[in-house]
Amino acid sequence: ALALLLLLLPACCPVRAQNDTEPIVLEGKCLVVCDSSPSADGAVTSSLGISVRSGSAKEAFSATRSTNHEPSEMSNRTMTIYFDQVLVNIGNHFDLASSIFVAPRKGIYSFSFHVVKVYNRQTIQVSLMQNGYPVISAFAGDQDVTREAASNGVLLLMEREDKVHLKLERGNLMGGWKYSTFSGFLVFPL
Amino acid sequence: ALALLLLLLPACCPVRAQNDTEPIVLEGKCLVVCDSSPSADGAVTSSLGISVRSGSAKEAFSATRSTNHEPSEMSNRTMTIYFDQVLVNIGNHFDLASSIFVAPRKGIYSFSFHVVKVYNRQTIQVSLMQNGYPVISAFAGDQDVTREAASNGVLLLMEREDKVHLKLERGNLMGGWKYSTFSGFLVFPL
Amino acid sequence: ALALLLLLLPACCPVRAQNDTEPIVLEGKCLVVCDSSPSADGAVTSSLGISVRSGSAKEAFSATRSTNHEPSEMSNRTMTIYFDQVLVNIGNHFDLASSIFVAPRKGIYSFSFHVVKVYNRQTIQVSLMQNGYPVISAFAGDQDVTREAASNGVLLLMEREDKVHLKLERGNLMGGWKYSTFSGFLVFPL
Repeated sequence: ALALLLLLLPACCPVRAQNDTEPIVLEGKCLVVCDSSPSADGAVTSSLGISVRSGSAKEAFSATRSTNHEPSEMSNRTMTIYFDQVLVNIGNHFDLASSIFVAPRKGIYSFSFHVVKVYNRQTIQVSLMQNGYPVISAFAGDQDVTREAASNGVLLLMEREDKVHLKLERGNLMGGWKYSTFSGFLVFPL
Repeated sequence: ALALLLLLLPACCPVRAQNDTEPIVLEGKCLVVCDSSPSADGAVTSSLGISVRSGSAKEAFSATRSTNHEPSEMSNRTMTIYFDQVLVNIGNHFDLASSIFVAPRKGIYSFSFHVVKVYNRQTIQVSLMQNGYPVISAFAGDQDVTREAASNGVLLLMEREDKVHLKLERGNLMGGWKYSTFSGFLVFPL
Repeated sequence: ALALLLLLLPACCPVRAQNDTEPIVLEGKCLVVCDSSPSADGAVTSSLGISVRSGSAKEAFSATRSTNHEPSEMSNRTMTIYFDQVLVNIGNHFDLASSIFVAPRKGIYSFSFHVVKVYNRQTIQVSLMQNGYPVISAFAGDQDVTREAASNGVLLLMEREDKVHLKLERGNLMGGWKYSTFSGFLVFPL
C-alpha cells in the first residue's frame, strides 16, 4: 500500500526556487513519500525503509506519586503501584486511575521507573508487567535510610493494545511511595 | 502557514525513475511537506499531524562530574549541582558553567540524573528543578557504602526558554560527587 | 551530495488533489528531500538541516540477565558483564554472546544499565566502556540487602563501528546478577 518513489524530475517540468526568477531543475534522487492506502493510525512508512514520524507517533507519559500513600489505599489484589499526578500524557494512553499504559500502536517503547520507599525493614521488589507478566524487576532493601528507590528501565516491543504497569512483587510500601516516578515513550513505531 | 498536500501528480507530467528510461507516474496520495511561512525554529509540522524532524529538533546533552569536588566550591546559595565535563551538547543548550539546560523549543524532553555521593553519614535529596520549582526528587542515604547514587528520571513538557537544573535539597556532598551524570534530550517537538 | 529544494511549483504544472477533479497549485515553500548520492546507511539529511528518519535509523536493544550466574562463568580477563536474554534488538547490532553493542552509524545514542548484585560484602563498580575506555560508572555496596543495583545512564556520540559494553571494574558478582538490564537506542543520527 505504500510506495516511496525515487524520482528524476523531467526536464520538461522546470521548477522555480522561491524568490528566484531563475528556474531550477530537480536532479538526483528525490524522496516523495507516497501512501496510496494510509493506515488507520497515521503512520507513513515505505517499503524502502523511509519513515516520516507522524503526529500519532508522539506518545509519551510521565507520572509521579506526589503524596504519601496510606497503607489502606493499597488493599488491592493486583498490587498495582498507583500514581496520582500526571506530568506528561501526550496521546493520553496512560490512565492515571488504573496507572496502566496501553500502547496505541506497535513499536519500540522505553520505560523507566523509580519506586521510592520510606524507612521500613522489608525489602521490596517492583516488577514492570507487560500484559500481566513480569519483564524486569528492581529492588530496595536498606534498613537504615529514610528513602530509597527501586529503579530499572527497559526497551520493549509493544504490540497495539499491549499494557504495562508496575506491580509490587514482594514487601510492602507502608508509609507511602511519595517521589516515585514512572515514565515511558515511543522510541519509534514498527 | 503550513500545508500538507495530498497530490495526484497529473498525467501531463510524467517523471522518470533514475537510471531508468521508462517514465513512471506518481499515483496515490503523495506527501509533500509545504511550509509557506516557516517558523523561526525550523519545525515543519502540518495541521494534518505529519511532522518532519528538522535539524533543530536534534537536542541532547549529557554531562558528568569527572573530579572529586572540594566542599568549598559549593559555597553557593542556589545549591546547584555543577558538572565539569560535557560528553554531548548537540544544539549547545546546556551551559556547563551554570549547569543549566535551556530548552530551545517547546516539546517533550527526557531528563535523567545520577548524583553519586561518597561516604558520609547524611542523607541527600536531589531535585530536578524546572524554572526554579522541584519536579522530582531522588535520595541516597546509606552510611556504610563508599559511593551511592541518588537517581531519577522524568519526561517533561518544556516551553521554549524553560530551564532545568539539579539542586541539592538536603544534606551535603562533602567529598565530592565524582561519577555523577545528568542527561537530557528532546523526545519530540510540540 | 544532498540537496533540499525549496520549490515554487510552476503554474505550468498544476497537480490535482486525489478524489478531486479541481486542479490545485502548490504554493509556498515545499520541501522535497533530494539525495543525489545517498549514503551507504540510508540516512537522508540535507545541508539545510532537515532530516527524514530512515528505516536504518531505527536502532534499539535491551538485554537482561534472566538467571543467576555461576561465578566460574565469569573467569574472563575482560570482566565483561554478560547478558543471556535479548528483549529488543532492532537492527541486530547488540551481540548477545559478547554482550557488545556496535554502532551501525554515527549519532547520539542513549545507554542505561542496572547491574543487580546479590548479597555479598564487596562494593562493586560497573563502568560503561566505549571502545575500551570507561565513560561512566555506577556503584553498589550495601552489605545488608538481598539485591541492589548499580545504575547509571548517559548519552554518547558514537561513530560508526564504535563499541559499547559493561565492565566490572571492582568487586565481584559472585552469586550472579539476575535482574540486571542493559539498554540503548539511537536518539538521532548525525
